[in-house]
Amino acid sequence: MTHLPKRVSITEVGLRDGLQIEPRILSTEEKLSLARALIDAGHTSLEVTSFVSPTRVPQLADAAELLAALRGTPGVELKALVPNVRGAERAIAAQADVLVFVLSATDSHGARNLNRSPLESLSELRGIVAQALAAGIRIDASISVAFGCPFEGDVPVERVIGLASDVQQLGISRVTFCDTTGMATPRHVQALAQALRDKMPDVDPAFHIHNTRGLGLVCVLVALQKGITRFESSVGGLGGCPFAPNAAGNVCTEDMVYMFHEMGIETGLHLDRLLEAAHLAERLVGHRLEGQVLKSGPRLSLRGHDA
Amino acid sequence: MTHLPKRVSITEVGLRDGLQIEPRILSTEEKLSLARALIDAGHTSLEVTSFVSPTRVPQLADAAELLAALRGTPGVELKALVPNVRGAERAIAAQADVLVFVLSATDSHGARNLNRSPLESLSELRGIVAQALAAGIRIDASISVAFGCPFEGDVPVERVIGLASDVQQLGISRVTFCDTTGMATPRHVQALAQALRDKMPDVDPAFHIHNTRGLGLVCVLVALQKGITRFESSVGGLGGCPFAPNAAGNVCTEDMVYMFHEMGIETGLHLDRLLEAAHLAERLVGHRLEGQVLKSGPRLSLRGHDA
Repeated sequence: MTHLPKRVSITEVGLRDGLQIEPRILSTEEKLSLARALIDAGHTSLEVTSFVSPTRVPQLADAAELLAALRGTPGVELKALVPNVRGAERAIAAQADVLVFVLSATDSHGARNLNRSPLESLSELRGIVAQALAAGIRIDASISVAFGCPFEGDVPVERVIGLASDVQQLGISRVTFCDTTGMATPRHVQALAQALRDKMPDVDPAFHIHNTRGLGLVCVLVALQKGITRFESSVGGLGGCPFAPNAAGNVCTEDMVYMFHEMGIETGLHLDRLLEAAHLAERLVGHRLEGQVLKSGPRLSLRGHDA
Repeated sequence: MTHLPKRVSITEVGLRDGLQIEPRILSTEEKLSLARALIDAGHTSLEVTSFVSPTRVPQLADAAELLAALRGTPGVELKALVPNVRGAERAIAAQADVLVFVLSATDSHGARNLNRSPLESLSELRGIVAQALAAGIRIDASISVAFGCPFEGDVPVERVIGLASDVQQLGISRVTFCDTTGMATPRHVQALAQALRDKMPDVDPAFHIHNTRGLGLVCVLVALQKGITRFESSVGGLGGCPFAPNAAGNVCTEDMVYMFHEMGIETGLHLDRLLEAAHLAERLVGHRLEGQVLKSGPRLSLRGHDA
């Protein structure tokens, strides 16, 4: 395992991607306590909310209030999803640091999940880019079902790269490739990472992997071996898979950080404090989360010499 | 991911390592139904039971009956753990195909778990090897806490290799290296696999990895990348970790097989039938198991085009 990157950066998505599937609506104060615990653990990039319709996702109805409360935390980048031009206006007014726009790689998933085809999403994105530019705010893009679509099956790498290229031509350089329903495998991860290196050297990619079929950290490792250094994950593994109610969702931040640290790769995060944040997340949502280190503790803290 | 092995072999340990921690005692008939489902899924190597004291592990009190019922299944190797000379006598009388003797890599774990030091285990093993030789039955060895000890912490690779060498000198060529409490990390796996290749080319190693801290399949992948081709795992991830009650135990067979197949690596197993066996295991033990593919289905079967 020579030639691995020495450092990775992680965007914590638990507050948005994790919470949005949770039935218990957290108060803004509760979300703030979790956000502060995550920042205290060293996080400098948080996807905090989404400016979707509050009737569609009641959990995120306090998007502006949450951003206002967190605004101005030194050295911390607050990201907000914007589904459309209207959401972007609200996010800009709320002074998000970064807007994130999601496009689907397939027509079927786009129609069902975003109510838009990839082409229609690109058109909407064009308007948002103009808004962001005028406001002096960065905008990143996320491509859903980049490693497979639950409706269409395999998604050709060429299609994903083509969409990323369209996005890049709108002036966006940071693109997240999302394993929306946990269909990524080592081969898919390798193929996409290789294509990105070969064909899109100017894009700064992040991989957002799910653990729905148990391969979450395997795919992260394979991505790392192919030079990917930006990842998205969720505290405690918060968030599930809407298509498979009992399955895991996002890769768990602490488990991923545990893996990186045990490989000598820096994350800038404190594992012990991440575990505290994950325990807090469990209390807030009212049920156990998927994180494994959360249940067992780090490897050298399991039993003392006198246990 | 060039130069990966084209094929791996898997020993299913759910019936022994998985069941022994379960509170509900399964009937011999129930165990047989699970064993048959596993064989139907293509398994040719099963660790079926242990000839421990029935008062110590009541779940495995039917060791001889289970072996008798499974005996003579064509092409299937039935393995039985033997803790001592007395257990070996019973396993030989019950016509196990392979005896497995467990040694601990550390004094602390050996004293607490086996009531023996590594040196005392070697002495006991010497007697069992003589018995097995006389009976014409193969004997394999398993080394516990080979990737870390919950009492002593890191276990030097040299110590593990030294013990494996002592075992080999007794005439044993197949040695399983066990991640007993889930302390293996990519670095530990790499270091041991490399040392085995460099220093013990005549030993045929198997890796028995746990998923206690979420790195189970990561460690399997890293082992594979270092040329390890024999693995042990448990249907559904059956079996936990006695030190961390809610944590995962053995690597889940179906999840591992899913990973291998998606990488184009042959296992000789049918994933769909493995999933049926895992569902059966869940019904028999009366609770959900850790396997992820069990909850979500394989990647291309999640949603049809018309879903």
